[in-house]
Amino acid sequence: MLSCLGVDDDFMDTSIRLTPTLIGVSGGSGSGKTTLAAAIHKRLGDDRSTVLRLDSYYKDLSHLSLEERAGVNFDHPDALEVQLLIQQIHQLRCGKAVEVPSYDFTTHTRRPETLTLQPKAVVLIEGILLLALDPIRSLLNLKVFVDVPADIRFIRRLVRDVQERGRTVDSCIQQYYATTRPMHFAWVEPSKVFADMVVSGEEQIETLATLLIEHIENL
Amino acid sequence: MLSCLGVDDDFMDTSIRLTPTLIGVSGGSGSGKTTLAAAIHKRLGDDRSTVLRLDSYYKDLSHLSLEERAGVNFDHPDALEVQLLIQQIHQLRCGKAVEVPSYDFTTHTRRPETLTLQPKAVVLIEGILLLALDPIRSLLNLKVFVDVPADIRFIRRLVRDVQERGRTVDSCIQQYYATTRPMHFAWVEPSKVFADMVVSGEEQIETLATLLIEHIENL
Repeated sequence: MLSCLGVDDDFMDTSIRLTPTLIGVSGGSGSGKTTLAAAIHKRLGDDRSTVLRLDSYYKDLSHLSLEERAGVNFDHPDALEVQLLIQQIHQLRCGKAVEVPSYDFTTHTRRPETLTLQPKAVVLIEGILLLALDPIRSLLNLKVFVDVPADIRFIRRLVRDVQERGRTVDSCIQQYYATTRPMHFAWVEPSKVFADMVVSGEEQIETLATLLIEHIENL
Repeated sequence: MLSCLGVDDDFMDTSIRLTPTLIGVSGGSGSGKTTLAAAIHKRLGDDRSTVLRLDSYYKDLSHLSLEERAGVNFDHPDALEVQLLIQQIHQLRCGKAVEVPSYDFTTHTRRPETLTLQPKAVVLIEGILLLALDPIRSLLNLKVFVDVPADIRFIRRLVRDVQERGRTVDSCIQQYYATTRPMHFAWVEPSKVFADMVVSGEEQIETLATLLIEHIENL
């Protein structure tokens, strides 16, 4: 664990005395991990908790041409700026606010603006590749993996992408076969073994959130 | 094994001297079992082989009202007239032609006409519930189960039902959740243990057909 000496004291929030509890919520695409993290966050409230999304840490690709950007594999751990996330987790643990990047998925670049995230007693970090990232995993106080069969995850993605993102069924199937599915079995599924707790994402999310909050409060 | 004494000699094809080899091809919906059975049949040719589909043996429901018919679970073994299939398999083994029912899936009744199926050296029988039917299983000389992950099977069904049957994505998803998926895990998946051979339906079907024909010829 890094010391907090290197953290700029000007921005240190001295009201935070306790090291925040870091809860990692991982699982495949369509597993319901974002919904679960949001449900826990809502129950704990803004005063006690905050959510950090791994998706915010995709690398800025403005130095690449649009063609080159399209060729990047975004389902691979190398697409993420892990060092920045580690640094910001460290800052949060030292009671300091962080500036979370705002990622533009249409251009694969970071927007100029950032989101200021205040340190809280519980920091929920959610992302598909979270438990596949060795240096992040060791920082988490509790590692949760939301396990949902692949057919159900595909159907959830399909419904979401068609209804909310206006995509065609064909393009959803193509992307699933080209990257989502192979990367799931290469990176996400094998990372399940690192979880402290594997939960079924087919259960009622609210029941699951209640159980996890009881556990978090005991931590 | 029943004797052939009870079989009407008038229709006995005396050119068939060898007991036909019965090959069962099973697997979940969308596994590619029909395609595999058709590929084997095509390679062996009409002179040497024929295909029997378990789907032809759905019970005639003309005694039920249309509402009652809609309520029947067609993914359950009880929906099939297993005794008729056993009887016809027996006739084929005795070198006798059979009259295969022609099932109308829109009205859930049998059409007046039947399909005359001549006995051949190799009889391929294909169906989702084939290996789940205890009395049928014991009649098969080779039991093949085509194993394909549930997400891929769902996608194949979806593409087929939308493109070829004009169904909506929503209705495909509803049917999958309501009957196809639960019945798969209740009946089809557990029947896999009875297979002599579990093959991957993700492989090239033609390669698979070649391998199986080599094996069938050795039987």
